[in-house]
Amino acid sequence: MAQQHLDPTDPRSRHLGPAPTGDTLAGYLRAQATEFLRALRLHRETGSGANGSEASAEAARALRRSARRISATLHTFQSLLDTDWCEAMRPELAWVSGTLAMEHAYTARLERLLTALHRLSGSTAPPSQPAGAAAAGRPAGATGPKKAAPSHAGAQPHPAGTPERGNLTVGAAKAGALLDRQLTLARTRAHSTALQALGSSRFHAVADKVAVLASEVPLTKATDTTDLRPFAAAAQDRLADAVAALPLVTAGNPYNAAALIHGLSPDTVPHPQDAPWHQVRLLLRLHRYAREAVSGPKGNAVVDLRLLSAGQALNRHRGASEAAAAAAQAARTPRIAPATAYALGVLHADQRHEVEAARFAFQQCWQKEAVSTG
Amino acid sequence: MAQQHLDPTDPRSRHLGPAPTGDTLAGYLRAQATEFLRALRLHRETGSGANGSEASAEAARALRRSARRISATLHTFQSLLDTDWCEAMRPELAWVSGTLAMEHAYTARLERLLTALHRLSGSTAPPSQPAGAAAAGRPAGATGPKKAAPSHAGAQPHPAGTPERGNLTVGAAKAGALLDRQLTLARTRAHSTALQALGSSRFHAVADKVAVLASEVPLTKATDTTDLRPFAAAAQDRLADAVAALPLVTAGNPYNAAALIHGLSPDTVPHPQDAPWHQVRLLLRLHRYAREAVSGPKGNAVVDLRLLSAGQALNRHRGASEAAAAAAQAARTPRIAPATAYALGVLHADQRHEVEAARFAFQQCWQKEAVSTG
Repeated sequence: MAQQHLDPTDPRSRHLGPAPTGDTLAGYLRAQATEFLRALRLHRETGSGANGSEASAEAARALRRSARRISATLHTFQSLLDTDWCEAMRPELAWVSGTLAMEHAYTARLERLLTALHRLSGSTAPPSQPAGAAAAGRPAGATGPKKAAPSHAGAQPHPAGTPERGNLTVGAAKAGALLDRQLTLARTRAHSTALQALGSSRFHAVADKVAVLASEVPLTKATDTTDLRPFAAAAQDRLADAVAALPLVTAGNPYNAAALIHGLSPDTVPHPQDAPWHQVRLLLRLHRYAREAVSGPKGNAVVDLRLLSAGQALNRHRGASEAAAAAAQAARTPRIAPATAYALGVLHADQRHEVEAARFAFQQCWQKEAVSTG
Repeated sequence: MAQQHLDPTDPRSRHLGPAPTGDTLAGYLRAQATEFLRALRLHRETGSGANGSEASAEAARALRRSARRISATLHTFQSLLDTDWCEAMRPELAWVSGTLAMEHAYTARLERLLTALHRLSGSTAPPSQPAGAAAAGRPAGATGPKKAAPSHAGAQPHPAGTPERGNLTVGAAKAGALLDRQLTLARTRAHSTALQALGSSRFHAVADKVAVLASEVPLTKATDTTDLRPFAAAAQDRLADAVAALPLVTAGNPYNAAALIHGLSPDTVPHPQDAPWHQVRLLLRLHRYAREAVSGPKGNAVVDLRLLSAGQALNRHRGASEAAAAAAQAARTPRIAPATAYALGVLHADQRHEVEAARFAFQQCWQKEAVSTG
């Protein structure tokens, strides 16, 4: 426990210095609101359409990041803030970050699947630029790929066997082309949806509220003396409870084959067994943001590497889980060749093993954490 | 090293008691030859055809076991035995054990694949009696399943969706039926081949030679004083060298995803990366049998559990490797449905991960061994 008491960012450190109160909370929310507005301005300046650049994508990421933090802070410290305002604000922020996240999610999913297909084919193509994605041409937008490409939204990928995917085997090449077509279409739609959202009156209302928040935080009375740390500790407890309910003994046993159980069950996409892990991912994020809020502006620099790596394992878990579901979904496309379906089956199982590997990685992180701070 | 010197079965223990010499070797070979003849008699008594029983299967296993041991002993201690006799005998013994092993291998492969399909479908069918195998009806023969079943050699499996495989999903059920048909056919052929072999003049010549061996071992001169242990130590060294060449660092790193590399490559069935592991499996067996030969008749009881579990891991490795290849092979059957091909792809990847898991298990065993005896 000694280590915890030396860490000013730990919500349980109630014996050190003046307790963080409403002022700290207001400062954190104002800073995040300012960041939201800055990112929004940057996003409008860098262009959000098909001519979008890396700066535009970075702006969209910053927008999502601050929206998530404001929303999380409203959740964790809700009893210190105006209730009606909180209840009106949170779903709107969730809508903003959720809508902006979709295009990026499809991009990442396609990249993950094409990288895996190359690995499974023994290809030497660099993971940073999957041949399939490069061949298909993708719209570069707000949350698009890092390198801008000519816009051919919805363009058909090159047929299998072209030099661009020449190092994929026939089944893998067709599977890659199919995934490329389906996920590029989904990403293009998500891009349009995000653009529409950013131009909507609903979004303008959110931006107006965030602008107010940047100068005036609707704290309830008596927050001057209320210690923030019990609220942050409660967020940590919710996380700990959810982690305790995870099958960590199984996860810590390598090659337990648990993630692929029901892998051929038709009604399990997405896998119900993944849900508790996704939930822990969200609770871990709430815990991390609560730590940030409590630590005050200077404390932001203190990053818990174990929390970060545990969070990365859960991100990997979610990415692999969704990629596996996309492969299974693609295999249901009518009239595909058996070789394509076979490659998608291998790919699905590969990603489910990635899910299992991510759980193992999380268990290893978490165990380390428990040992060193327990 | 102290521990090794206390173990009389260790070939490196050169400082303990009288050295095992030609007499010990002759005793071991006579015992194995006697066991071969006993098993052969039992096999003829219990019947070897479609009316074969569990006793018949057990007799075939004993026949293979003693043939393997005689062959291995001829290999390890060849310079102590008549050269011409050894060179004539070894390929014949390899032919006997190889021919008798095939039917059992197909039975085990089908059982492994159907068990995996049930696991992947989230089915609760007991692994000891896969629904598909039970439904298909298998010929019970010399090396057949433990429970005798009515003989319907080559019978078509029940169509998908019958109660027998009702708890498999549609794709998995069709994949199971396809594998059942193909592997049952292969097993039936292997059964016929084994029966023909056992009735052939070639086999009778082998049996005659083994009968001579049971009373008279063709030792070279001067074997009365030649220490057997350097020969056994050489077998151990060959094993250690082969293990040292394995990628054990990768294997000891869980979820390294190495076994599925080239998983979609068309020219890699069977996987070339598996070959060094198969080779270690054979060298481990030679080492184990050399230990048996050196330890004399009483030493047989001393079993090295670590060697056994390392050997089991390598058996599992080979079983999974061959099952994965069989799933890939079945996926090339013309005119199969995409759902069937998809299920076979999932199954292939699942078995390749079993390969990876077996390598991890071997690495763990081997590391333990190195620590406790090094």
